[in-house]
Amino acid sequence: MLKMDAGALTAFLARDFPQVCDDFLVERADEDGLTIRLRVDERHLRPGGTVSGPSMFGLADVAVYLAILSRIGPVALAVTTNCSIDFMRKPAAATDLICDVRLLKLGRVLAVGDCLIRSDGVEAPVARASLTYSIPAT
Amino acid sequence: MLKMDAGALTAFLARDFPQVCDDFLVERADEDGLTIRLRVDERHLRPGGTVSGPSMFGLADVAVYLAILSRIGPVALAVTTNCSIDFMRKPAAATDLICDVRLLKLGRVLAVGDCLIRSDGVEAPVARASLTYSIPAT
Amino acid sequence: MLKMDAGALTAFLARDFPQVCDDFLVERADEDGLTIRLRVDERHLRPGGTVSGPSMFGLADVAVYLAILSRIGPVALAVTTNCSIDFMRKPAAATDLICDVRLLKLGRVLAVGDCLIRSDGVEAPVARASLTYSIPAT
Amino acid sequence: MLKMDAGALTAFLARDFPQVCDDFLVERADEDGLTIRLRVDERHLRPGGTVSGPSMFGLADVAVYLAILSRIGPVALAVTTNCSIDFMRKPAAATDLICDVRLLKLGRVLAVGDCLIRSDGVEAPVARASLTYSIPAT
Repeated sequence: MLKMDAGALTAFLARDFPQVCDDFLVERADEDGLTIRLRVDERHLRPGGTVSGPSMFGLADVAVYLAILSRIGPVALAVTTNCSIDFMRKPAAATDLICDVRLLKLGRVLAVGDCLIRSDGVEAPVARASLTYSIPAT
Repeated sequence: MLKMDAGALTAFLARDFPQVCDDFLVERADEDGLTIRLRVDERHLRPGGTVSGPSMFGLADVAVYLAILSRIGPVALAVTTNCSIDFMRKPAAATDLICDVRLLKLGRVLAVGDCLIRSDGVEAPVARASLTYSIPAT
Repeated sequence: MLKMDAGALTAFLARDFPQVCDDFLVERADEDGLTIRLRVDERHLRPGGTVSGPSMFGLADVAVYLAILSRIGPVALAVTTNCSIDFMRKPAAATDLICDVRLLKLGRVLAVGDCLIRSDGVEAPVARASLTYSIPAT
Repeated sequence: MLKMDAGALTAFLARDFPQVCDDFLVERADEDGLTIRLRVDERHLRPGGTVSGPSMFGLADVAVYLAILSRIGPVALAVTTNCSIDFMRKPAAATDLICDVRLLKLGRVLAVGDCLIRSDGVEAPVARASLTYSIPAT
């Protein structure tokens, strides 16, 4: 049922999103969902050394997008219509973030996924997010 | 670490929320979270026989509230400050709803939990919700 | 551009939602949006006499639904797909709630509206909500 | 009641957020709220030339933050705890975004604001967002 595995998703990112593809590493892609790593770099940080809100939003956004593509293939141009995100703890300083995604719905028109984001090596999540994508008619 | 188990939560509901306590059944309460059943009744239904949005909201709201009390005891008067809810599928007609809660954060001031709601006996979730509660200083 | 005015929306509620139509009063419907009153009654209250969360959710849900129908007519069967709601203040005890809706987007597939809810006669809002409806193809 | 006006907020951004201060221009700060401009640049764009989701999230986040500071001064270290954002239309290509903020609640512990984001010169909003900030005890 998986149309794109971790390797295919990585190749897709490199080709279609060259400006951000170095930020993200697809660590797992299977029927339960995906794991994506944000390779934290200077440009993701706020003063104080923790990852910024927009960087965490971007991670969740890419992660759900890739979870959808893993099922439908690199075909349609899905767009984010809604995101709700809770910032629960301060990320560890200068540490990669690990984002686990579950694809909860993949309909004809809408897809919904949710994410838990952790600092690499830390159990307690720093953020959770849920996103809705609209899938254009083909 | 659990200050109230399923029995204690049920007794708490019966005493403090007599008007809704017959709606809800605490099926599980452990360190991972809770499972709450909504005993679906005429008053929860919309025309067509499916459970209404406000009833699903109410289920998620009670479920996260009880998850917090299971950890801190029946002490503080926590209040909901935010809820984000995605309605993903139509519930099965005239069927109980099962709500699984994870308590993702229990801070001094704020607590965050998320829920997956399913029709009893059906795997695909009908809704997901995340809620924030504010915990008053004691 | 308005396909249903306050009178038409009221008649629609009475015919299609007899079980809740006494709860709601359409006070205004124009091209900027709607104002809906929740006639607060015993069954909307929590212990302490304030309006419950599910009642406020239900008010916001109905309000955006009617705002959509005011533009497209009583045709399609729109369904709520997402709601985000912030509870900001305690409502005044035993006081009607007034909900002002803005329809921010009315697309072919999705509609988005947001609401401010106040206790009648009080300026500071008790809640805000934003809702997305999916509009089925006709 | 305003502790920081547009000039003071701009100076604060330049001093405390040098890495993003060129992105944002405070166009208005009064008791009703703020207007912030995102000076759109290459780094805010996705393939196709429209502003990216993370850039819009960042704009809403900064805008509500500044709305809070305009009232309480550059004192406390407020942190975002929740954001709900709806992406409703494609932004105009290579065009600044204008974000209007309303501060809906400024409590002792939590503040809530909402935003409408438009492409400069276009009436229909491209996004709406609501954010909660936690204000640390001083």
